[in-house]
Amino acid sequence: MNKSNAYKVIGRPEPRSDGLEKVTGKAIYTVDVALPGMAHAKIMRSPYPHARIVRVDCRQAERLPGVYAVITKEDQRGLGMFGAAYKDQTIVAVDKARYVGDPVAAVAAVDEATAEEALALIDIDYEELPAVSSLEEALAPGAVLVHDFASSGGELMGQRYETPKEFAGTNLCYRFSYAKGDVGEAFKKADQVFEDTFTFPRVQHFSMEPHATVAQVEEDRITMWAGTQEPFTLREHLADIFKVPLNKIRIIVPYVGGGYGGKLAVKTEPLAAALSWKAKRPVRLVHTVEESFKTVTRHPARVRIKTGVTRDGKLLARECLIHMETGAYADAGPRVTQKAGYRSLGPYRIPHTKTDAYTVYTNTVPAGAYRGFGTLQVTWAYESQMDIIAGKLGLDPLEFRLKNLLKKGELYTPGDTPVDCDLEEGLLRAAKAIGWGERSERNARGKGLACCMKDGGGTYKVSSAAVKMNSDGSVVLLTGTVEVGQGARTALSQIVAEELGVPFDRVMVAQLDTDVTPYDVNTNASSSTVVMGLSVQRAARDLKRQLLRHASKLLKAKPDQLRLEGGRVHGGNHSSLSLPELMHKVFLSRAGEIVGRGAYQDIKSKKAALGSPTTFWEISWGAAEVEVDADTGEIKLVKYVSLADVGKAIHPVMCEGQDEGGVMNAIGHTLLEEMIYKDGQLLNPNLVDYRVPSFTHLPKDFETILVENQNGPGPFGAKGTGEGGLLPVASAIGNSVYNAVGVRLYDLPLTPEKVWRALQAKKTA
Amino acid sequence: MNKSNAYKVIGRPEPRSDGLEKVTGKAIYTVDVALPGMAHAKIMRSPYPHARIVRVDCRQAERLPGVYAVITKEDQRGLGMFGAAYKDQTIVAVDKARYVGDPVAAVAAVDEATAEEALALIDIDYEELPAVSSLEEALAPGAVLVHDFASSGGELMGQRYETPKEFAGTNLCYRFSYAKGDVGEAFKKADQVFEDTFTFPRVQHFSMEPHATVAQVEEDRITMWAGTQEPFTLREHLADIFKVPLNKIRIIVPYVGGGYGGKLAVKTEPLAAALSWKAKRPVRLVHTVEESFKTVTRHPARVRIKTGVTRDGKLLARECLIHMETGAYADAGPRVTQKAGYRSLGPYRIPHTKTDAYTVYTNTVPAGAYRGFGTLQVTWAYESQMDIIAGKLGLDPLEFRLKNLLKKGELYTPGDTPVDCDLEEGLLRAAKAIGWGERSERNARGKGLACCMKDGGGTYKVSSAAVKMNSDGSVVLLTGTVEVGQGARTALSQIVAEELGVPFDRVMVAQLDTDVTPYDVNTNASSSTVVMGLSVQRAARDLKRQLLRHASKLLKAKPDQLRLEGGRVHGGNHSSLSLPELMHKVFLSRAGEIVGRGAYQDIKSKKAALGSPTTFWEISWGAAEVEVDADTGEIKLVKYVSLADVGKAIHPVMCEGQDEGGVMNAIGHTLLEEMIYKDGQLLNPNLVDYRVPSFTHLPKDFETILVENQNGPGPFGAKGTGEGGLLPVASAIGNSVYNAVGVRLYDLPLTPEKVWRALQAKKTA
Repeated sequence: MNKSNAYKVIGRPEPRSDGLEKVTGKAIYTVDVALPGMAHAKIMRSPYPHARIVRVDCRQAERLPGVYAVITKEDQRGLGMFGAAYKDQTIVAVDKARYVGDPVAAVAAVDEATAEEALALIDIDYEELPAVSSLEEALAPGAVLVHDFASSGGELMGQRYETPKEFAGTNLCYRFSYAKGDVGEAFKKADQVFEDTFTFPRVQHFSMEPHATVAQVEEDRITMWAGTQEPFTLREHLADIFKVPLNKIRIIVPYVGGGYGGKLAVKTEPLAAALSWKAKRPVRLVHTVEESFKTVTRHPARVRIKTGVTRDGKLLARECLIHMETGAYADAGPRVTQKAGYRSLGPYRIPHTKTDAYTVYTNTVPAGAYRGFGTLQVTWAYESQMDIIAGKLGLDPLEFRLKNLLKKGELYTPGDTPVDCDLEEGLLRAAKAIGWGERSERNARGKGLACCMKDGGGTYKVSSAAVKMNSDGSVVLLTGTVEVGQGARTALSQIVAEELGVPFDRVMVAQLDTDVTPYDVNTNASSSTVVMGLSVQRAARDLKRQLLRHASKLLKAKPDQLRLEGGRVHGGNHSSLSLPELMHKVFLSRAGEIVGRGAYQDIKSKKAALGSPTTFWEISWGAAEVEVDADTGEIKLVKYVSLADVGKAIHPVMCEGQDEGGVMNAIGHTLLEEMIYKDGQLLNPNLVDYRVPSFTHLPKDFETILVENQNGPGPFGAKGTGEGGLLPVASAIGNSVYNAVGVRLYDLPLTPEKVWRALQAKKTA
Repeated sequence: MNKSNAYKVIGRPEPRSDGLEKVTGKAIYTVDVALPGMAHAKIMRSPYPHARIVRVDCRQAERLPGVYAVITKEDQRGLGMFGAAYKDQTIVAVDKARYVGDPVAAVAAVDEATAEEALALIDIDYEELPAVSSLEEALAPGAVLVHDFASSGGELMGQRYETPKEFAGTNLCYRFSYAKGDVGEAFKKADQVFEDTFTFPRVQHFSMEPHATVAQVEEDRITMWAGTQEPFTLREHLADIFKVPLNKIRIIVPYVGGGYGGKLAVKTEPLAAALSWKAKRPVRLVHTVEESFKTVTRHPARVRIKTGVTRDGKLLARECLIHMETGAYADAGPRVTQKAGYRSLGPYRIPHTKTDAYTVYTNTVPAGAYRGFGTLQVTWAYESQMDIIAGKLGLDPLEFRLKNLLKKGELYTPGDTPVDCDLEEGLLRAAKAIGWGERSERNARGKGLACCMKDGGGTYKVSSAAVKMNSDGSVVLLTGTVEVGQGARTALSQIVAEELGVPFDRVMVAQLDTDVTPYDVNTNASSSTVVMGLSVQRAARDLKRQLLRHASKLLKAKPDQLRLEGGRVHGGNHSSLSLPELMHKVFLSRAGEIVGRGAYQDIKSKKAALGSPTTFWEISWGAAEVEVDADTGEIKLVKYVSLADVGKAIHPVMCEGQDEGGVMNAIGHTLLEEMIYKDGQLLNPNLVDYRVPSFTHLPKDFETILVENQNGPGPFGAKGTGEGGLLPVASAIGNSVYNAVGVRLYDLPLTPEKVWRALQAKKTA
């Protein structure tokens, strides 16, 4: 039943809860936190991609007036190692530095200038070692090893990751394999087999707010203000490192200026805590932009994709070999690798599949979680190859896709959640919107389509929330979802307001504080609207039940005869009570509060390939039209249409904003962004040399279409959105370029140089 | 059943939860809070006891560099009036200043010195008015009126207070009357009738930490760090004054350095908020000691007590006329007056009683809540008069009391909770401990007894709490009880640890923050151990129920076959699970938390004199031995024995500490403390001229006896304690003085001058 019209708050463009604070500059981010006596920290970073640390002398630095503490490898003694998936990191490098930028020492001082000055006084003797700076080098036989240990393992987001024993003596640290059917036989039966290799560049998250932490360690208690996407998980990391129970660690999360996965797990927060512990005062550690480039990136990847088809265009078999370059420390690499592998099947019916995805250490900056968790790397490959195949088979790329798309209710893999969306409907709408089949107005113009899906919600989710009604009927929502700019506070407040029948502005979201905010595993994977949304909706309904139970006694009616609307409880016979009146009658004075609680927990199933069925399917379609300048190789994006299956848009304007942001984000890695290394040195760690898209890169004709079929498991039929917008962009543009000028590109970003060289090669061919 | 021996944590001297922080100086109080850009406030106060404010010119002050805001009477426009019981206060005086110290303007500036400088530049024209500075002046016919309005009314702690209409044109603002039987007839039948008048001085709470507030007002949102005993109620006051909903006000309570009632309700917190609003930055307003003297005091009182007895020493009738001087603003005066009136019956069986208690405005500093809420004023009177009567009847004061004491289970008044303690047992123990009946070793020594009771827990209580178990089995307690030094965090943590079968140090108390901490009406009236104690115990049991329900599935046993002990769930057949193991099995990963909630709410009953039956009876006994120096009149307290009926001591050492502190506090108003006014000016608003007891004032022989009969309604049979220790002190000492040197004193404090004059008068009589 589509009850959209009946909603009072859901589906309406309420003003952002955090809007006024943000536009007036009053919103507090971690960088704004200032505590009495607070010291400022700076990190000394390795200038070598790989080097043994022979001797560290920090005596001069310690003697500098204004210096409170210097942390060197000696301070790791007694502390636990850490890392998102594997515990392969230390607060500063101990035996070896493993990439240019690897923290080797840190200083807390009266101000940043003094801290910088102290860094210059730290004397470190390095013994430079040969390094592996690319997948090729790392995978070569007899390659230098980034880590000496033979194997590693750990739990991440409810799953166990292990380094297989046979990887000893290599730079491999994780493998994900998935197979169904018999690809060997199927390739034999196929009329044609296509094999292509695509690469994806190293790009940085580029949050407007770099990584920031303020840590205050007193005795055995750690208080931390952190720009983090998963405070509860960060708390666990800190508990392990500092060997204190969880209730001795309090993490407060102010507004976060963008996360994109780069603020998941644990980065330099433990270093800030160690500095505070040693300096005996609060310590503020705020990265520069350059430092965030040296802290975490997305995984560069190489995807070899082999697909067998019948003559009439049915997909028969697919085999993928994926290598994800995770840099010097694994961070979330194993998980990203697993997701890349699992998602390499695409939104198509392929009876026989086999995927092997590997995580590879190199002496480069660690790669971690990034929007899509490996999906972008594989969608770039599979949706580009779909057009290659269609071309070779003489089929229209749209028709070819339609022949193979999974139907709603069909299984992606056995044991997983059935597909919860009509893929065909969306693809046809995308095609129509771009004018598929109509000729482009001008030469050197072309169109391209892409359709992508990912298992939404990450994997295993545990979440809870509380909704409180004060004695005056005003409402407070306690949620562990981090407001990273995505508008979570607004959407979650809408859910509360709708359920309680109060105006939107009666709901306020309390500050996130792990001591008191109900547990939530993390803010990632476009999951909050579904996962936290359900927790919040259940909490609001729990509160509602309690309110109606009280009201039923007062209004002498059964709870199910009552309804909440306009801040009142309405009963039969035109009787009603305002919420403050109800509260007053319950507490017999102007006092008290009623709290509702709600929770969500994914199920686990051994039948599911990833151990837990997908929470929802995040599905998106993209259609692009480009114009290629044959003289310069420049790709001009003329038009882009993005479709997102949002189920039900809680706040349509913000959903569109999220989707547009996603597309813009993907224009970056499609056309512009690439971290460039030379001899292990990052050449462009700043906004001048590393280009992120600006508004000038957006197509004039830019449309987002929200597909709303109330087909999501979230509140009011909602699904998560945000990452979806990114997925089809690169391949839709790559396919358009082929359609425009007949050159096929395999390596992102599609820079003018690459296009021009391809055009030259084509001419000379 | 006395299960004391079975307890693992209850009744044991666990280290204070806040001990380490406090002795190392790391504990954060409101004065320690510092925010970026924070301004410092100073208050300009009226130099006149009563004056019309003719003109305020603050232009020069506003122009002083470093001044961010000046608040004058103009800024009250649009704001609501406020006050604990009646809304008779404004952020600064508007039409008239009503006492020396009444705020008339305030400044927020870059530092305190600049703020002080700006105050000197504010030009105010006053028109001095005649003032009433004592009960006598205020009650005289045709007296100047402190307030012009005819009547006032308001709700305080779940009760309604009103100024009777007939008080128009007087300085009376509230009356409490209670009567049972027929005192007129009873006095006629009495063999003897005694009528005496006692007075009680004006004393200050003298918390080690003066009143302190840091306010941050942004748009319509108020965040406040405040040294307050009732943050949730303060939030309501602010909501009314600034006309914002409760969810827009967040009050965070750091440690509080003593309250004693002086930090209940609302003081200068709204002024701090108004300054922040106007200065557009956080504002810190910290009183000097002198300013706290000019903010709130205990009620000076005059108690006329008339008692009729039979020849053989049975109390027949009592009539009390009580006047409580509430100063320039009512604050909690009506409630204190009500309590003084209701508690004037004492712990005795008196068939006929009549009490009239009045609240009287004067042009002096407002009097508000103070430990005992009016009880000290009346116990001084009734327990002194008991000895006067015994003396006249030729009865031993102990025997006379024993004849009349209420029995356990007897009613104090119809409709109230029956007496929950054996009063006789305690009195006999007190008598024995002081060596009653044995002659004092030296001349001029004497002994005295007193037995007092008050309805504990204030009146109407609404409270709630939450207890959370983290995935590692560590525990967080969320409680709205303010740690004012009484050790609430420790005692409440013990209750949690006992219920959950975990070691005491596994429990941590989260910071009190009205946004997220479960509602609690206030921290007062020795109530927290019972009221919050029950909420906390219920929350812990709710958590335990959930844990056992989960464990019962895993251990394949019924929940009632399981027990929590030593951080494990134990089932049958030696099977057991650690709490982290249990949590891991519930959440299928290292994630999640389980939260228990508990609440407590007093009942209301029209049959109860105060609308709500007493939560528990706080009963205490005191026995003193003094030596009087006939030459100087100095009273030397030789020995003091205090007995407190604590029901069950959760933490015996802290109970003793509370009781000893209470006695010491009462030694102040008994022997030393009095705020001295001359021409409306307070002459001794500082520690040099106003003496509070020091350790040298304690008797060498000082004993506290905890009476533990598990007779309280609180957790494990506990009752509240703290205020009880104060109650008998003054009369036990007064009676000892009479016993020693034969002079009866009616006016506290019992200074050497008064004693010497009484001795002289006796000689010449």
